[in-house]
Amino acid sequence: MRKQTTLVLLLLMFGFAAADEGMWLLTQLNQLDLEKKGLQIPVSDIYNPDGTGLTDAVVWLGGCTSSFVSPNGLLVTNHHCAYGALQRASTMGTVNYIDDGFHAASYEEELPAPGQSAFVLLGLTDVTDEVLQNVKGEKDPLKRSEKLEKVIAEMVEAEEAGKTDLSVRIVPMFQGMKYHKYVYRRYDDVRIVFAPPASVGKYGGEIDNWMWPRHTGDFTFMRVYSAPDGSGAAYSKDNVPVQPKNYLRIAGSDLKEGDFTFILGFPGNTTRYRTSFSVEHNLNFIYPNTIKDFQEIINIMDELSKVDPAAEIKMAGMKAGLGNTMKNFQGQVDGMTKTDFIARKKAFEQELTAFVNSDKKLKKEYGDVLNKISAEYASLNATRVLDDALNSFGRLSGSMFGVANTIFTTVDELAKPEKDREPGFNPKMVSRTKDRLKFTYSSYYEPFDIAIFERTLNKPGVQNLEAVKAVLNGRDVKSFVAEAYASTQLKNLEFAQSLFEKTPAELKALNDPFINLVIALQPQRKASRERGEKFGANIDLLRQKYIEVLLAWKGESGMYPDANGTIRLTYGEVAGYEPADAVVYEPFTSLAGVVEKNTGAEPFDAPQKLVDLYNSKDFGRWTDPELKEVPVAFTHRCDITGGNSGSPVMNAKGELIGLAFDGNYEAMTGDWQYDYEIQRTISVDIRYVLFIVEKFGGAGHLLQEMNL
Amino acid sequence: MRKQTTLVLLLLMFGFAAADEGMWLLTQLNQLDLEKKGLQIPVSDIYNPDGTGLTDAVVWLGGCTSSFVSPNGLLVTNHHCAYGALQRASTMGTVNYIDDGFHAASYEEELPAPGQSAFVLLGLTDVTDEVLQNVKGEKDPLKRSEKLEKVIAEMVEAEEAGKTDLSVRIVPMFQGMKYHKYVYRRYDDVRIVFAPPASVGKYGGEIDNWMWPRHTGDFTFMRVYSAPDGSGAAYSKDNVPVQPKNYLRIAGSDLKEGDFTFILGFPGNTTRYRTSFSVEHNLNFIYPNTIKDFQEIINIMDELSKVDPAAEIKMAGMKAGLGNTMKNFQGQVDGMTKTDFIARKKAFEQELTAFVNSDKKLKKEYGDVLNKISAEYASLNATRVLDDALNSFGRLSGSMFGVANTIFTTVDELAKPEKDREPGFNPKMVSRTKDRLKFTYSSYYEPFDIAIFERTLNKPGVQNLEAVKAVLNGRDVKSFVAEAYASTQLKNLEFAQSLFEKTPAELKALNDPFINLVIALQPQRKASRERGEKFGANIDLLRQKYIEVLLAWKGESGMYPDANGTIRLTYGEVAGYEPADAVVYEPFTSLAGVVEKNTGAEPFDAPQKLVDLYNSKDFGRWTDPELKEVPVAFTHRCDITGGNSGSPVMNAKGELIGLAFDGNYEAMTGDWQYDYEIQRTISVDIRYVLFIVEKFGGAGHLLQEMNL
Repeated sequence: MRKQTTLVLLLLMFGFAAADEGMWLLTQLNQLDLEKKGLQIPVSDIYNPDGTGLTDAVVWLGGCTSSFVSPNGLLVTNHHCAYGALQRASTMGTVNYIDDGFHAASYEEELPAPGQSAFVLLGLTDVTDEVLQNVKGEKDPLKRSEKLEKVIAEMVEAEEAGKTDLSVRIVPMFQGMKYHKYVYRRYDDVRIVFAPPASVGKYGGEIDNWMWPRHTGDFTFMRVYSAPDGSGAAYSKDNVPVQPKNYLRIAGSDLKEGDFTFILGFPGNTTRYRTSFSVEHNLNFIYPNTIKDFQEIINIMDELSKVDPAAEIKMAGMKAGLGNTMKNFQGQVDGMTKTDFIARKKAFEQELTAFVNSDKKLKKEYGDVLNKISAEYASLNATRVLDDALNSFGRLSGSMFGVANTIFTTVDELAKPEKDREPGFNPKMVSRTKDRLKFTYSSYYEPFDIAIFERTLNKPGVQNLEAVKAVLNGRDVKSFVAEAYASTQLKNLEFAQSLFEKTPAELKALNDPFINLVIALQPQRKASRERGEKFGANIDLLRQKYIEVLLAWKGESGMYPDANGTIRLTYGEVAGYEPADAVVYEPFTSLAGVVEKNTGAEPFDAPQKLVDLYNSKDFGRWTDPELKEVPVAFTHRCDITGGNSGSPVMNAKGELIGLAFDGNYEAMTGDWQYDYEIQRTISVDIRYVLFIVEKFGGAGHLLQEMNL
Repeated sequence: MRKQTTLVLLLLMFGFAAADEGMWLLTQLNQLDLEKKGLQIPVSDIYNPDGTGLTDAVVWLGGCTSSFVSPNGLLVTNHHCAYGALQRASTMGTVNYIDDGFHAASYEEELPAPGQSAFVLLGLTDVTDEVLQNVKGEKDPLKRSEKLEKVIAEMVEAEEAGKTDLSVRIVPMFQGMKYHKYVYRRYDDVRIVFAPPASVGKYGGEIDNWMWPRHTGDFTFMRVYSAPDGSGAAYSKDNVPVQPKNYLRIAGSDLKEGDFTFILGFPGNTTRYRTSFSVEHNLNFIYPNTIKDFQEIINIMDELSKVDPAAEIKMAGMKAGLGNTMKNFQGQVDGMTKTDFIARKKAFEQELTAFVNSDKKLKKEYGDVLNKISAEYASLNATRVLDDALNSFGRLSGSMFGVANTIFTTVDELAKPEKDREPGFNPKMVSRTKDRLKFTYSSYYEPFDIAIFERTLNKPGVQNLEAVKAVLNGRDVKSFVAEAYASTQLKNLEFAQSLFEKTPAELKALNDPFINLVIALQPQRKASRERGEKFGANIDLLRQKYIEVLLAWKGESGMYPDANGTIRLTYGEVAGYEPADAVVYEPFTSLAGVVEKNTGAEPFDAPQKLVDLYNSKDFGRWTDPELKEVPVAFTHRCDITGGNSGSPVMNAKGELIGLAFDGNYEAMTGDWQYDYEIQRTISVDIRYVLFIVEKFGGAGHLLQEMNL
């Protein structure tokens, strides 16, 4: 039976870590008593700022996590994290590394993955005082926020100056109560070493996405290259495999239910300390609108794919991304509705209010925080229709409009005196923007671009915009769009790049339809952005106050900052769960289940070789003694979110046992609340990874490189 | 983990009872060692031909099973078994007993269920010798089959003669190796006492149909009435509640996993001893064609319901029936395909052939049985297209065409000399046919009738029939159908009934379009029927030989005859199962699960009162001590099929613990093969039944009647 205590537990939990909950900062590890909870190595073996720790093997991929698994820069992450790189490396009609997989038998055969960078963490520092001293006494939230942004940009710039491979991030913790600085070395030469075919690496596809039981071999091996001097550099055949400070060792023993596990990774974003007003805004507006929007875009993709099958590959990555977000948002809606989330948040806030009101000083300082937050969301609502219409142009980032927008806003900013420019805006950034335009062009697919541009212009809110009316100038959308694509010169990459050298007036003189539209929209989009910035500045400070009062209420122990792309540790034992009345999910799936799901049709199209291996029980050394099968994936009580994809999962000895790749659907509201009963991390078992590499892929040399 | 032994086990099992498998004859109970398997009462307490047994409380409903649960004829069965009766009792626009449920506070309020009969078994006899002596020496299968049919009809008629409430069935066992006679008393006055609303009794609807975990309160109480002298009679207000020879006692203790259970009921039809040729015929032809056909009919119903919501109720029962069969057939297709059923049957037949060939005598007697069966199916295929077209008229039984067909074929048969008539055809049957026409008219819905008649005539095979061409006489289908419904007098029930008094010539002279079509089709339909009868006679004898050789191979112990609507016992413990890799289904569901599934929208529209009872934990005495919840349904290893619906489920003490109402989807090929690992009976827990009656329905007086 499902535990009846779930709702009660949840009510108590907002904002305070329950057993196993949490995405902990490396500087918080000592307060977790991990040894008591099952860790068999000293915490200092995990993170050792003065020496070497496992964290030195954990590599940020900008949106995903990965880890070094050999002294020669061999890196392992999820297949879905390497998807874009595989896609870009695939040449239409000749090789399709997504469908076929890839295996480099030697360094020479490794496949450059253009656009993929790897960030190795060099160190982290608390810079709270250094940052906040600049805004002491500043009462105006927006000015304070702008100052902070400027100061941070300057600090980053100063530290990166002259170091081409350094990447510095200064990020607020606890909504700005603290600021931490993370310094990375950036490597731009990352190559693909081994990728299973999609029929293994994406087995189950969108149907199984977010689902348990799961049978996806979601992994890919890459290798990080540095310049011969060890510095990070762009691809060059003279580059050499990087020699990481540390790399992970593969587990030498089998994993089983109840085992202690932990994860090191870069979770992107959580909102665990938000108020009911924020929840309402998302549940009633952001989620349903985005779902509708993305579904329309996917429909467009599907129509185009019917006409041109080659288009499918071009759009596959983006479609997968949209589908993933949609399913996530739908899960949020379902989960929040089912658990009556808003009502429980409100009940919690009532309790909090009672606490605040019980103390005069607290009441004075914090008594109006909730009301002020509520007022901020009301003001956001007041201009929502207009802002929505304007924001829909922001979703055209990979399009011709997006190119025009990038060029014009960059040139326009460059034309300003340096002191008036946006913080963080500098020539290096301009040059990188210009250079990265080539990725936009290499994945550009015009029929899709035309369709989404038309769709945007056809939105009722957009049609009401004076700027749009002016640019259309009486023409209907269809003919305007047709003319625009026929007449624009922006489709030529070299031409587009050359425009970064122009002045705004010169751009205007081009009379390019896309640039014209960017210029026409500029005043209203600027005003909208400023409204957003004002809301952001106000709400940030209010949220900080809300966290302060939470701390005052319950004390500091057990609170971790929301995820923000910085490295975190989460831990919890291997455990199944009970998703519904009379249903128990066990924590391990097996190769038998891969075959059981196999229909021969995508996404359940297991390769015949894999089925043959199963039928002949040719499991090598990868049989689990209890399952008597090759384990494929497992669930455990770790607390992860987007950004953790590809994160190494370790056992009590700190050895690699798997790669996190998903959360379960039942706990999709996990970004808002942690649920001990049903929230699970889904990881691919390292034994399946190695079975596929060795028995299916015939890449035994990689096992040798990992000392197996 | 799912056991890897499943396939191996299955291969060994065709035709021979594995642990717990079997639908056993009452005369076989002593060979089962039930006491060793957990039964705590003597077998003679279950079935005692010389005294009283539990079998005396088990009542056939003609398609379903039920049981007496009080000395005053209170009967309990499934809600879906009483569905048609509830539907007929519902008056459009005023009361809807399906949606609202029904509760009679007194005998007087009980609701007549027209068309519902209850059959109480009086006794059973082996009449093999009496039957088979009539066909000794008859070599021609068809003549033999016709003689048998005639003899059996005569025996039945002789025994029923002069006894208005007696119903005699003589049925072949083991494909005609044996014949058993079952004598019943028929009661035509059955009244509805308590039915939950569909939101309880059909909770989960088609979505959950065949599924586990299940949360359906699938029960209805009825009461059987007799004439004051105790004989069976049609409804009369002078009738009195029947005093059954025995009735079941409600279990006094809680049920739990592993407990011994058994079921007494009337399973309708299984095909456990069929050959691969029969499987191929069904898998490749019957199932897919029927699924397609029924889906088309359901689509027609859905279209009509959109236009006329009242139509929905009229067609609800039929739609549910079609949906049920479709899901079943799809499950058969899925299950057979997934388990590679044909290949395994063929492998089994190879083994059998090797055994037969190993013995000269056996080879002579049985060496060609499989080849001959194969040849029969080949001949069936040869005329399949034509037979299909003709058979499609047989599916119009509730339509105007069906009425015309019933009248004409009856009158035509009556016109023959008595000795030439079909066996079993007699004036009593004619009179009952005439009388039962009223049920056809009370559920008649013309727009649906028109639509399916048109659909039939539009089938390509049907359009090719000369008889159809002749009747259409150049008109297109649409205008012919419109004219037919405009001109026919058959829509008047009294007129239609009066036609039973006419001669075939007089019917012909009416020039009714439906009767004209029946007459035109008659020669070809007769020829098709004769082909079918010849196939049936041949295949029956061959199947009998096949069973003989199975017996010769493996010995007689452990073989039970295929289900054929006669009373059977099946037993097996309470157990969950493992439907897929890493998924475990527990054997009990609970009220918590009802609430968990509740969306407020049909079919998951739990009544608010039920939700309130759950929220206030107002469970009365119906809480299970282990679940700490009201149990709703459970799974156990009994072996049932259609016809078992409503069957009483007993514990080791022979006390009532539930009502069987479904099998699980994973084992839908159960009619062809029993699967110990995943085949389960789904029963509603008697504690949920009583909780609903008492706490939800406020019908405590029924509990008193059951001595609770």
